[in-house]
Amino acid sequence: MTRSFDTAAAAVGPLDATAMADAVARQRRLTKPAGSLGQLEAIGNQLCGISGCCPPPLPTPAAVAVFAGDHGVLAEGVTPWPREVTAQMVANFVAGGAAISVLARQSGANLIVVDVGVATDLSALGLDGAPGLRRRRVRAGTGNLAVEPAMTEEEARRALDVGAETATELLEGGARCLVTGEMGIGSTTPAAALIAACTGVSPVQVTGRGTGIDDATLAHKVAVIQQALLLHASALDDGPLALLAAVGGLEIAALVGFIVGGAAARVPVVVDGVIADAALLVAVSLVPEVVGFCIAGHRSAEPGATAVLDHLGLDAVLDLRMRLGEGSGACLALPVIEASARLLGEMATFDSAGVTEKS
Amino acid sequence: MTRSFDTAAAAVGPLDATAMADAVARQRRLTKPAGSLGQLEAIGNQLCGISGCCPPPLPTPAAVAVFAGDHGVLAEGVTPWPREVTAQMVANFVAGGAAISVLARQSGANLIVVDVGVATDLSALGLDGAPGLRRRRVRAGTGNLAVEPAMTEEEARRALDVGAETATELLEGGARCLVTGEMGIGSTTPAAALIAACTGVSPVQVTGRGTGIDDATLAHKVAVIQQALLLHASALDDGPLALLAAVGGLEIAALVGFIVGGAAARVPVVVDGVIADAALLVAVSLVPEVVGFCIAGHRSAEPGATAVLDHLGLDAVLDLRMRLGEGSGACLALPVIEASARLLGEMATFDSAGVTEKS
Repeated sequence: MTRSFDTAAAAVGPLDATAMADAVARQRRLTKPAGSLGQLEAIGNQLCGISGCCPPPLPTPAAVAVFAGDHGVLAEGVTPWPREVTAQMVANFVAGGAAISVLARQSGANLIVVDVGVATDLSALGLDGAPGLRRRRVRAGTGNLAVEPAMTEEEARRALDVGAETATELLEGGARCLVTGEMGIGSTTPAAALIAACTGVSPVQVTGRGTGIDDATLAHKVAVIQQALLLHASALDDGPLALLAAVGGLEIAALVGFIVGGAAARVPVVVDGVIADAALLVAVSLVPEVVGFCIAGHRSAEPGATAVLDHLGLDAVLDLRMRLGEGSGACLALPVIEASARLLGEMATFDSAGVTEKS
Repeated sequence: MTRSFDTAAAAVGPLDATAMADAVARQRRLTKPAGSLGQLEAIGNQLCGISGCCPPPLPTPAAVAVFAGDHGVLAEGVTPWPREVTAQMVANFVAGGAAISVLARQSGANLIVVDVGVATDLSALGLDGAPGLRRRRVRAGTGNLAVEPAMTEEEARRALDVGAETATELLEGGARCLVTGEMGIGSTTPAAALIAACTGVSPVQVTGRGTGIDDATLAHKVAVIQQALLLHASALDDGPLALLAAVGGLEIAALVGFIVGGAAARVPVVVDGVIADAALLVAVSLVPEVVGFCIAGHRSAEPGATAVLDHLGLDAVLDLRMRLGEGSGACLALPVIEASARLLGEMATFDSAGVTEKS
């Protein structure tokens, strides 16, 4: 059954406290010093809370959805990369040559690419009928958030539905864990705007170099974000959906729906990079219990990522100084998450292995 | 051909500068912003230097060797865990119930356990003929380093050979990457002594709680280490082998040989935890070029681990607040290392994918 965003949001519940308490007790009986598996114990316990079982089911296979969309704010000169790269990278994902293509293959994860707002015509790139590509375009790129709303609330709602429906599709296809991915030249600008608006941290602190811009472009990017937040000040007061429409992105809105869709189905959602972190913030604003179902796969080198993780109290699995996005950091975290489940399920206890405990 | 430690040490050479330069150039052509894969780019380049090829061969399958030995310093009351746990955990490794058993299985790595100095009779535990267990005991546990040398230099040399020969065995069995593992109740005491002696950092700063000792036991453990370093002051001046014999451990000496054996064969050696970090320090003291072949899999929560990584300028792949040892952190790092090789080998370039570069 395809679940709309609203249906998914209504289905999100709390983590299962009984299963988590069982996990905490079980961790103490496994053949290791108490606490010595560090963050893997916390992740294992969370997986129990998500699934309601201890030990938890394995979070495999995973599936990665890369949502692609373009950004009108490119007109402001916030990045030296041309807009057509978004569509070219969609072709690269589909052909298997992008970083996330390689990483998804290695981890045995299904990878799909969802066009939710690419400006370039994908048909002209020969992508009609490409396997793994979903054509769900809501509009051909957002408006320029520096001078107008990025999209209407109705468009934002349609993108939320695309995300929630994509989660359902992947879960019905057998996925037991969802990985957030995205592509969109210029996307760190709306992400930083959303993060500043939701966390209250200033644009100067949450805006980063993205793909690697110089000092002058960074200063200009911060100014563009400050201007946008002033322009859309009333939307900021109208709640998360209005904010998302005013300064968000189509792929960011779809990610919000995707995260909520995963939480509704009680599977772990592994979040990657500053764009998905911004989407997670909006998702939590709309449906607070969503955060319990999310695992921060990687702490992006973008400063906004740390602002989000600190704001939500999340502890990233990896910190490899990556700033690529696409779902790359989250995909790399999958083996650690799988191990957290396996250790709870497969390790011997002091009793079963006949190991003496400390005096 | 089984390689003794001395033969292996003589065979270690520098990283291949040409392959590394090729890797740096190739990273710039892959379809990603320059530098956006962070630490994975550094690891990928290192793998090229190790193998002499760009792109590098995949570091799979890996093999884990868990060296087990007991420690006479237990007589000083440095840990609440009884000595027999070392042998009981050997049985647990072999039976597949320990954390490293689970993690090696998940990563498809061959796991062997090498008794290089367990005090308890493993035959009495029913382990005769156990698959995956190598009986290479040099002596039944070390002497108490607080009052006597842990072992003779001749015994240390024999343990070095066990390690180098184990590396050869695993590589001849098809391993393309070696993972250091160890087990020995009380082992963080000799490890801290070695680390203090080699780095010059004080015992107070490099000594940790190991399996989780209380404040009083920690203070006592530091005092024991300080006393040992005074007692063996002349050995500290006699070079790394004398130091290893005076305050080391049999499994630590075997790890030194194992690391050097891997470097001699030009395969990556993934180092795990504070015990293996101490062995790495000694290995580098004996054969400086070894460090280029090593990847720090995980930054142990033990303070001595950070002292070693800082001293050698190594950047750990993972930091999951683990302090278990066994090879667990290194095993968890394997997928990241594999990904670093795959990205260099499998990603499209801007030219091949038809992706426009930034202006």
